[in-house]
Amino acid sequence: MSSRRQYQREFVRTFFTSPTAVEGDDSAKMLRSASQLRGMQAPDAWIPDNEDATAPSMREEGVENIVEVVSEHGEEFPGEIHPRIVWHRDDPSTRYEGFQQMLRIADPEAGAVEHVDGFVIPEVGDIDDWKKADEFFTIIESEHGLEEGSLSMSVIVESGAAELALGDLREEMGNPSNNLERLFMLVDGEVDYTKDMRAMTPTGELPAWPELRHNTSRGASAAGLIAVDGPYDDIRNVEGYHARMEENRAKGMIGIWSLTPGQVVEANEGPLPPETERWLLDVGGSEVELDDVEGGQAYDGTELGLEELDEGMYRLEDGGEIHELDEEQLRERLVEMVSYVPSMDDIVDSMAEFEAAKEAGRGAIAMTQSATLVVDGIEVEISTDRMWDEATYQAAGTPIALFRDVHEHRPDQHDELKERYGPEVVERALDLDV
Amino acid sequence: MSSRRQYQREFVRTFFTSPTAVEGDDSAKMLRSASQLRGMQAPDAWIPDNEDATAPSMREEGVENIVEVVSEHGEEFPGEIHPRIVWHRDDPSTRYEGFQQMLRIADPEAGAVEHVDGFVIPEVGDIDDWKKADEFFTIIESEHGLEEGSLSMSVIVESGAAELALGDLREEMGNPSNNLERLFMLVDGEVDYTKDMRAMTPTGELPAWPELRHNTSRGASAAGLIAVDGPYDDIRNVEGYHARMEENRAKGMIGIWSLTPGQVVEANEGPLPPETERWLLDVGGSEVELDDVEGGQAYDGTELGLEELDEGMYRLEDGGEIHELDEEQLRERLVEMVSYVPSMDDIVDSMAEFEAAKEAGRGAIAMTQSATLVVDGIEVEISTDRMWDEATYQAAGTPIALFRDVHEHRPDQHDELKERYGPEVVERALDLDV
Amino acid sequence: MSSRRQYQREFVRTFFTSPTAVEGDDSAKMLRSASQLRGMQAPDAWIPDNEDATAPSMREEGVENIVEVVSEHGEEFPGEIHPRIVWHRDDPSTRYEGFQQMLRIADPEAGAVEHVDGFVIPEVGDIDDWKKADEFFTIIESEHGLEEGSLSMSVIVESGAAELALGDLREEMGNPSNNLERLFMLVDGEVDYTKDMRAMTPTGELPAWPELRHNTSRGASAAGLIAVDGPYDDIRNVEGYHARMEENRAKGMIGIWSLTPGQVVEANEGPLPPETERWLLDVGGSEVELDDVEGGQAYDGTELGLEELDEGMYRLEDGGEIHELDEEQLRERLVEMVSYVPSMDDIVDSMAEFEAAKEAGRGAIAMTQSATLVVDGIEVEISTDRMWDEATYQAAGTPIALFRDVHEHRPDQHDELKERYGPEVVERALDLDV
Repeated sequence: MSSRRQYQREFVRTFFTSPTAVEGDDSAKMLRSASQLRGMQAPDAWIPDNEDATAPSMREEGVENIVEVVSEHGEEFPGEIHPRIVWHRDDPSTRYEGFQQMLRIADPEAGAVEHVDGFVIPEVGDIDDWKKADEFFTIIESEHGLEEGSLSMSVIVESGAAELALGDLREEMGNPSNNLERLFMLVDGEVDYTKDMRAMTPTGELPAWPELRHNTSRGASAAGLIAVDGPYDDIRNVEGYHARMEENRAKGMIGIWSLTPGQVVEANEGPLPPETERWLLDVGGSEVELDDVEGGQAYDGTELGLEELDEGMYRLEDGGEIHELDEEQLRERLVEMVSYVPSMDDIVDSMAEFEAAKEAGRGAIAMTQSATLVVDGIEVEISTDRMWDEATYQAAGTPIALFRDVHEHRPDQHDELKERYGPEVVERALDLDV
Repeated sequence: MSSRRQYQREFVRTFFTSPTAVEGDDSAKMLRSASQLRGMQAPDAWIPDNEDATAPSMREEGVENIVEVVSEHGEEFPGEIHPRIVWHRDDPSTRYEGFQQMLRIADPEAGAVEHVDGFVIPEVGDIDDWKKADEFFTIIESEHGLEEGSLSMSVIVESGAAELALGDLREEMGNPSNNLERLFMLVDGEVDYTKDMRAMTPTGELPAWPELRHNTSRGASAAGLIAVDGPYDDIRNVEGYHARMEENRAKGMIGIWSLTPGQVVEANEGPLPPETERWLLDVGGSEVELDDVEGGQAYDGTELGLEELDEGMYRLEDGGEIHELDEEQLRERLVEMVSYVPSMDDIVDSMAEFEAAKEAGRGAIAMTQSATLVVDGIEVEISTDRMWDEATYQAAGTPIALFRDVHEHRPDQHDELKERYGPEVVERALDLDV
Repeated sequence: MSSRRQYQREFVRTFFTSPTAVEGDDSAKMLRSASQLRGMQAPDAWIPDNEDATAPSMREEGVENIVEVVSEHGEEFPGEIHPRIVWHRDDPSTRYEGFQQMLRIADPEAGAVEHVDGFVIPEVGDIDDWKKADEFFTIIESEHGLEEGSLSMSVIVESGAAELALGDLREEMGNPSNNLERLFMLVDGEVDYTKDMRAMTPTGELPAWPELRHNTSRGASAAGLIAVDGPYDDIRNVEGYHARMEENRAKGMIGIWSLTPGQVVEANEGPLPPETERWLLDVGGSEVELDDVEGGQAYDGTELGLEELDEGMYRLEDGGEIHELDEEQLRERLVEMVSYVPSMDDIVDSMAEFEAAKEAGRGAIAMTQSATLVVDGIEVEISTDRMWDEATYQAAGTPIALFRDVHEHRPDQHDELKERYGPEVVERALDLDV
């Protein structure tokens, strides 16, 4: 098995759950409204959630609601649809219940299954438990005359046993006695994982679990799957959600659970390259974004101070330390402190430039970025450069590959992408070789 | 195999080692005094240590001392008793010596084995090495007419090979050709691990090894075992010991090695919920505990400054940055900076409240905590709330489960628990459904 | 298999790559100049790089250049020689090309192979892919009449699949159907790994990948191999390179890729114990090195302030907090803030002292370090002590073992070692028992 992906989507930015049945006049209300989401508000993967988001007593009705709403609105829904059913590694009756829920939802006569891309299995255990679920998928496909392997399977990793199974996937997926090639998303579930690991924090906040996220991302990478982080439940904390996503992306975990349409928008936009470039300054151990003002990139904090002395000397105060520097030393020092966040436009430029250089027989070129820094009114010209070789080019290709995956599979977001980047940048990104 | 635990204790907070034989008139002196510990000074697991804590030349006598002291005092000892014998993955003669030590200690005629819960095997290697030790346990049980599997086996993870074996446990423990179900504690040994990994730090301090601790905790979780961290040898640094334990608990590693009765007290109390609640304020990147004063929760540091301006406006200075805020903005900003550490009493309240809500058919409720913050003499009313659902409830149950495990198995600590929490809180904690 | 190493070198500090063929009059120019490096400028492992460092169109010529330059200069080259050839887990034609490159380089008639210690295989995948490479080595040895297993194999870990394979090595290396005992270095390749994991950072900087480095180091430890970190491409940032190496050493990863002879010097010297001792002071969360002045160890920053009050009291200001302390309290507080970085001389002293104590029958002794701290002109005598037992001694032995490995295998560095430490310290280090 090479690690080619089995599914259309190469990236899933957003995993949005909706309760399948709620108390009230129209128990399918939440499902119905989610099914109407479009554009940046609509997730890449929509999860009608017949497990934790729905009260146990409502889950029977939840199955009916899924069938009804997905039959009616599934065709127009712009993302993939992956209902979550019940499952538990330690409880056979829950597993059998999950099987029955899938069997009903997947019945072609009910009309929903042609819009269902797969199912999400929570609370899995070791790899043999994953196989039990896979076997039910195979039976359901056989019973309903669906093509074997046509329903994808995604799992919630929320136990130590499941985390260990992430290391077995690649090997097991080639095994002729299962259909684990149907695997699609590996989704962390930190709340239940925390319980399973018996972890405790003073405030009751969830631990950050960096190793779990690494192992999920690595498991996805090794088996050609997609890694998705669990729910971020501090819903009003948009900054915190962004910080978590940035951390995740540095681990190769590009998708994240979204609990509200607002979070969907943030998480759909989060991994897309920024529309404008930014300069950061590393002051006193934390990175400050510079202001793009008339004369250049201005720092307006108080931790860094700059003053011109006589005869071309400068006095730089940085976190209590004082340095006397000539112009060249000052420039060097500031270059060390500064870093550059490229925009989509820049990334496309750099990649096109490298492609042209490669065609002309050059294997490595320097990419230069220049700016005027303004500190306490004093302007300093700086420029940084970075060597690009084939490997840099390939690694820089990830955000472009993401962008193109989104562009291909989410036509409902074309207007928003054009508005964000301008039509010309969109066109050039689609024209790259990568 | 479901991941149900094989042993009575679900938690081990403290792993306390004593030399089995020391130079002097009474070579069993240290063993004898440890065997008299009671209450918070007595560990959950006591380890008469016939390996590193005892000079090689004294280990013969150490075996005799274990037999003598455990026969005499084992019955009254309130914790479990797990002698450590010698072992090495790379040395068959050391392994055979370890076998002989266990064989002698476990001889029923000597009278100690009825009080011995198991043995601790240091310096294990890969899983096949663990099986060699397990086989010796089985032979010893057979030779001495003990029930097969009745002696538990705990290991010290102090090599890369043993760390890798943590991933195989769950699978191997179901294997009919071994009795690895006897496994009980997985204990990190960072000093020898550092040597085995050939790691170096400038000062000679031990590296923090976060991945090792994660993998040990995960291995324990997957196989229904108990994870224990290694020795913290900066004995006078109580604050550091607490910080390490807090970090460990966020990894699900609740137990820790204790080198002195003083460390035993700290480590027995550490994982128990606090007796009083606290408010923390995140100022300049670090968390400061607020003082519980007459008017509310007071901040008395200098990094945060608050001043009332005209017309309901406030001037907040936070780490060099200045903000002008109206009352509502000020409140919001402070709410973001504050966090709440619940007391045992609060946890019990919240859980009881959730249990009642669940009974009344509600799946999620908001838990609110309010306080008056006092900064530079200005009082601001704040309140934070957190949604509780079944998963939150289950995760919050870990400290309660720990408390109940302690209460059930350590009657010698009842008085100290009652004094700490008051008899009424203890009663209510025991009455929860969880 | 015990975890004894198969090769002469127990440590590899430096992994230095050279392009095998560059455009111009003498395409072997870079190889030729690298082959002349001696002393601290010469790496422990030199990698004529016929993969990424060399343009695809130049690689045929690269093979000829390797043969020519290594034949001529290999005998005198003071480090090991491990050419890197092409390979890819997903591409059989690249693998076959790699085989042919090795076959040509290893031809005894060409005269290079007697100086070639092994080959470096990039872009490996799971363990079965490693076995494919190993099989080619075996065929090449057989075809060329070389001893089976005489060519070592090193791999670049630059995919999630390869990272997972690190957990299988120990077990697979005992397998009679392969010759994986030929494995030598495990080298991280973070650029391609980042691409394989599809990770993204705002600035395009590489993520730090702490878990990958841990897993590589652990894999090396478990299988008796050598762990090497990937390229640090910010070549002018010497401080950053040192910080990365220090972090790596705390993980047991002692080697690092070097891209220039300048980096080779830094990375050859980095893991050697310092020639002089230093005192560090932990002020405001970061460690500051004290100045070794006439009166003692002086702090000259502004974050810590000390003033003498009346009647033996002192006023200590530390990061905004003010403490009034008597002399004893002041001393205690400073002892907590201070740490000591021993020199080679100190380490040798401490080890010799422990060896003598052990011979005299003592299992643990206290090592004391004293200094006069000078803060704002006020002198405070402090001393710290640390208990040494057998385990401490063994762990402290790693830098000494490294030093001795270097001394044994790199006679070209003897002069530089003597100049660094003085001949007497070198002698004593070689005389230790460890």
